[in-house]
Amino acid sequence: MKLTIVRHGQSVFNQSNTFTGWEDADLTDKGIEEAKEAGRKLQKHGLTFDIAFTSVLTRAMKTLYYILEETNQLWIPVEKSWRLNERHYGALQRLNKAETAEKYGEEQVHQWRRSYDVLPPLLEEDDERQATKERRYALLDQKAIPSGENLKLTLERVTPYWMDTIAPQIKQGKHVIIAAHGNSIRALVKHLENLSDEDIVNVEIPTGIPLIYELDENLHPTNKYFLENE
Amino acid sequence: MKLTIVRHGQSVFNQSNTFTGWEDADLTDKGIEEAKEAGRKLQKHGLTFDIAFTSVLTRAMKTLYYILEETNQLWIPVEKSWRLNERHYGALQRLNKAETAEKYGEEQVHQWRRSYDVLPPLLEEDDERQATKERRYALLDQKAIPSGENLKLTLERVTPYWMDTIAPQIKQGKHVIIAAHGNSIRALVKHLENLSDEDIVNVEIPTGIPLIYELDENLHPTNKYFLENE
Repeated sequence: MKLTIVRHGQSVFNQSNTFTGWEDADLTDKGIEEAKEAGRKLQKHGLTFDIAFTSVLTRAMKTLYYILEETNQLWIPVEKSWRLNERHYGALQRLNKAETAEKYGEEQVHQWRRSYDVLPPLLEEDDERQATKERRYALLDQKAIPSGENLKLTLERVTPYWMDTIAPQIKQGKHVIIAAHGNSIRALVKHLENLSDEDIVNVEIPTGIPLIYELDENLHPTNKYFLENE
Repeated sequence: MKLTIVRHGQSVFNQSNTFTGWEDADLTDKGIEEAKEAGRKLQKHGLTFDIAFTSVLTRAMKTLYYILEETNQLWIPVEKSWRLNERHYGALQRLNKAETAEKYGEEQVHQWRRSYDVLPPLLEEDDERQATKERRYALLDQKAIPSGENLKLTLERVTPYWMDTIAPQIKQGKHVIIAAHGNSIRALVKHLENLSDEDIVNVEIPTGIPLIYELDENLHPTNKYFLENE
């Protein structure tokens, strides 16, 4: 059984060095090209999919779209869930990373970015950046919507979706593709590989490079590789 | 309650005057522009959607994508079904319309195109154009896959999907958008408006122009209008 995971291509917030999280930054032209290139690689390797999962954030949904377009598979079912969203970056969202480092110090920002369980500053309840104000989250129990997450909390919301929705598809023999984000993918990788809290924070997920897992019948990885540039 | 229906924009087969049916012709640049323009009109009129339905044919799926992209609603659920596909044009698929008229006569082609219940010549079982050979239909009972349809048969496959899947969403108060094809939309229009077999064949569905129905609680239309160019 195979599972394919792709991190979205460059977004306008990546380009401007801005903390993104649940902010709905669009792909740049470079990001679109990364997505199409991922599609071409998958096509070249003859990988086909039965069902796709993505977040409700535009940069991941578009990355998936371009991959499916490039591989002539726009017709497969696509499920979108807030549970695959990027880690919520709290009150850091929309701030410039360099300016934030100047203000709070490199060490503090490194902690926020790379610790497993340190929380970023949280959004105030009435902050205009609160996702509770967005129509795409209107049907959720509003208590589901975070004001800021560390990787631990991200993992705690990703894994129920993996357990209940994605894993059963794989166990039924479906080849699943997931288009998601740096930290929601880290959460999946930690879960799949049983990595420690210390090890997962150092795992880098490259953008637009398909990550393929081969899994046994208990969904334990027996092989893992990236479809690199050749 | 509102229902929005959009016919896909120009495809490469429309452009080359070719019978299309279940052939998976892509949108032309003009078709993409028609789809985006439909999105801009919907945006301008403040129409938002809760769920979308489309066929498994690229020209309709892409039309929907561009509309949702243009209106910042890529996050809504999208369901794709073969039941919303264009009418299957049988052995006429991939043939040039003008050449077919020369060969069989204008009157015969008019019959094939505009009668309610005259069948086109059917595909032979081993014809390479048979949709049974395509992966996107592999999970269907292969008896579901037509070798050629008239509008009557198209309607008979569209209405179960309307009954079981689309109509319940509307009755729950959801604003539904459907991106589909000339004849699958005719089938919906005939059903909704209780048109006769004679009347429906003369109904023209313009491409890329959103058709809005206002419906009462029994899904009877109380109003109908196109978002025309202004």
